[in-house]
Amino acid sequence: MKIAHVAPVNHRVSAASTYGVALNVANVCNGLVDLGHDVTLFTAGDADVKANVVGASIDTHTRGLDIKDDDALPYNYLNLSACYARAHEFDIIHTHYNLIGTYFEPIVNTPSVHTVHNPLPASFLRVQDHVRKQNFVSLSLAQRRQYPDLNWVANIYHGIDTKVYTFSDAPQDYLLFLGRIVPEKGVHHAINAAKEAGVPLIIAGMSKPEDSYWQNEIQPHIDGSQVQYVGPAPLDRKLELLRGARAMLFPSVWEEPFGLTMIEAMACGTPVIGFQYGSVPEIIQDGETGFVVSTEKQMASAIKKIHKLRREDCRVRAERLFSVEKMCQGYERVYQRIIAKANRKK
Amino acid sequence: MKIAHVAPVNHRVSAASTYGVALNVANVCNGLVDLGHDVTLFTAGDADVKANVVGASIDTHTRGLDIKDDDALPYNYLNLSACYARAHEFDIIHTHYNLIGTYFEPIVNTPSVHTVHNPLPASFLRVQDHVRKQNFVSLSLAQRRQYPDLNWVANIYHGIDTKVYTFSDAPQDYLLFLGRIVPEKGVHHAINAAKEAGVPLIIAGMSKPEDSYWQNEIQPHIDGSQVQYVGPAPLDRKLELLRGARAMLFPSVWEEPFGLTMIEAMACGTPVIGFQYGSVPEIIQDGETGFVVSTEKQMASAIKKIHKLRREDCRVRAERLFSVEKMCQGYERVYQRIIAKANRKK
Repeated sequence: MKIAHVAPVNHRVSAASTYGVALNVANVCNGLVDLGHDVTLFTAGDADVKANVVGASIDTHTRGLDIKDDDALPYNYLNLSACYARAHEFDIIHTHYNLIGTYFEPIVNTPSVHTVHNPLPASFLRVQDHVRKQNFVSLSLAQRRQYPDLNWVANIYHGIDTKVYTFSDAPQDYLLFLGRIVPEKGVHHAINAAKEAGVPLIIAGMSKPEDSYWQNEIQPHIDGSQVQYVGPAPLDRKLELLRGARAMLFPSVWEEPFGLTMIEAMACGTPVIGFQYGSVPEIIQDGETGFVVSTEKQMASAIKKIHKLRREDCRVRAERLFSVEKMCQGYERVYQRIIAKANRKK
Repeated sequence: MKIAHVAPVNHRVSAASTYGVALNVANVCNGLVDLGHDVTLFTAGDADVKANVVGASIDTHTRGLDIKDDDALPYNYLNLSACYARAHEFDIIHTHYNLIGTYFEPIVNTPSVHTVHNPLPASFLRVQDHVRKQNFVSLSLAQRRQYPDLNWVANIYHGIDTKVYTFSDAPQDYLLFLGRIVPEKGVHHAINAAKEAGVPLIIAGMSKPEDSYWQNEIQPHIDGSQVQYVGPAPLDRKLELLRGARAMLFPSVWEEPFGLTMIEAMACGTPVIGFQYGSVPEIIQDGETGFVVSTEKQMASAIKKIHKLRREDCRVRAERLFSVEKMCQGYERVYQRIIAKANRKK
């Protein structure tokens, strides 16, 4: 198939990205190329993927401007425009822009599919009526519950490269939090639960030292032994931290559409203990590859019994449900279905 | 010619509108129909124009929601989408969305022209490089100075229906301010200048009673004799106020791209005294059909000598430069030029 992908220009698309959408787009593109497809990716010109990269409509220095999401919108629209202007060259166009790709789809004959990566603002939801016939992919069934009226054509879990995220059966005695240090990720819950369980916690991820959350809720607890902070972790360091962890704590207190770090951990054999928001109960198999809990106290109890879980089970679940191959086979089937439907209409 | 217009959905397009863009779009559509063209207007379904109105992509109750500009964006994008999906039906597409129509233009073969009605946000200006080949129309030469790098293909002044805005040579003894009561329109300068000249001032337009500008700078001066406030003026009332005014005060302190009320006044024979920002010196012929001034003191002096100007000169200038016919002939020429250029490329 000739497949076009269109993805945000304000994060570098690469399998080494720490930004979920950019990492997922890289995985999808690479996986589809491995399956033998002809893939073209429209994004900023410095993307690092196996696909043909078209960065023509975007200044290559864009990212140097460190532009905010809102300021990046004109670039992102131009990027969509550049892709749809070449629609006739592709069998299908796959956008990673939540809903805004739907403005362009009706103008061309090539069918589109849109992955919804992020929460949708209310202003977009008001126009749902107008996009009922368009094709949306969810990242979890939990995500669909928030937007029951969208035309979901498939649920496709994120996948990671299980050749990179390899299994380890020799964890050390620490827990891991991996992610941005922001209130909705619930880092403070991880700290309290780890303290109560008496197991050291390593926190890895981007902090915002200027925010009161960091200053009041996180920094005072960092003592270098019970709670350690190691900053943002590039891929190699991240793999090392994941493989060595007794468990990953995933105390998000918002409706995560997916939560990529959970499967990164599982692929390394590391079980995950998460709060029951969003996709968490779907991704963690409660009592088998981790625990789904509701309070800090329950999280602490789960930490104490984490040794009862078998790390092999985590790896097997990741391979079975959350590999790049599995994800790309899912997209392949969706593309075929959408293209066949479009052809019947012609 | 088969001409598509695309205009914002969050203001009703009508020759009776008090909102500049909506009024201008109505005038352009009606004028082009009068010139014998086949005009289709994409906007909300309740537009009141001679053209074919396509409001299909927009809920007819949209305006009832009284949505803010930002919230209206998804509707406006869908409106652009609906128009460009039918691009093949038209010889040219004319957008009234500043720059956002440029995202859609490259996808279709039909050429486009974009009228820039409003100040452009910095985030849009960053993408100027990518729209260099697209066709923009300015409303004044002053507007171009702010955006020298856009590809301006014509300067076309707004026009009004000079059969509706008829001449009056019997003004009463008052000055008129007509417009929204906001700081950038400089209403407080009009009050001070009128007071200093000792001539009554009538203020007509939408106020924002909750804003400190209204509470502190305007309301305390309203005494019903020296300064009167009559609220928003529907078309009939507006015409009456314009015809009866000794002069209109236009004390805007921002770079007005055009300033429709100035030509409404002139068509009625009413001279305009304005500050030298934006388009003002182009529209008012200083010392002939009004005065261009820099301070409240100068505005007061100009008020005192306004009787020296001939109201006929104002009317003649409006008929010659600012009629719907003149404007539509301008657009007709631009369309022909753009279509011819597009055909040469095919």
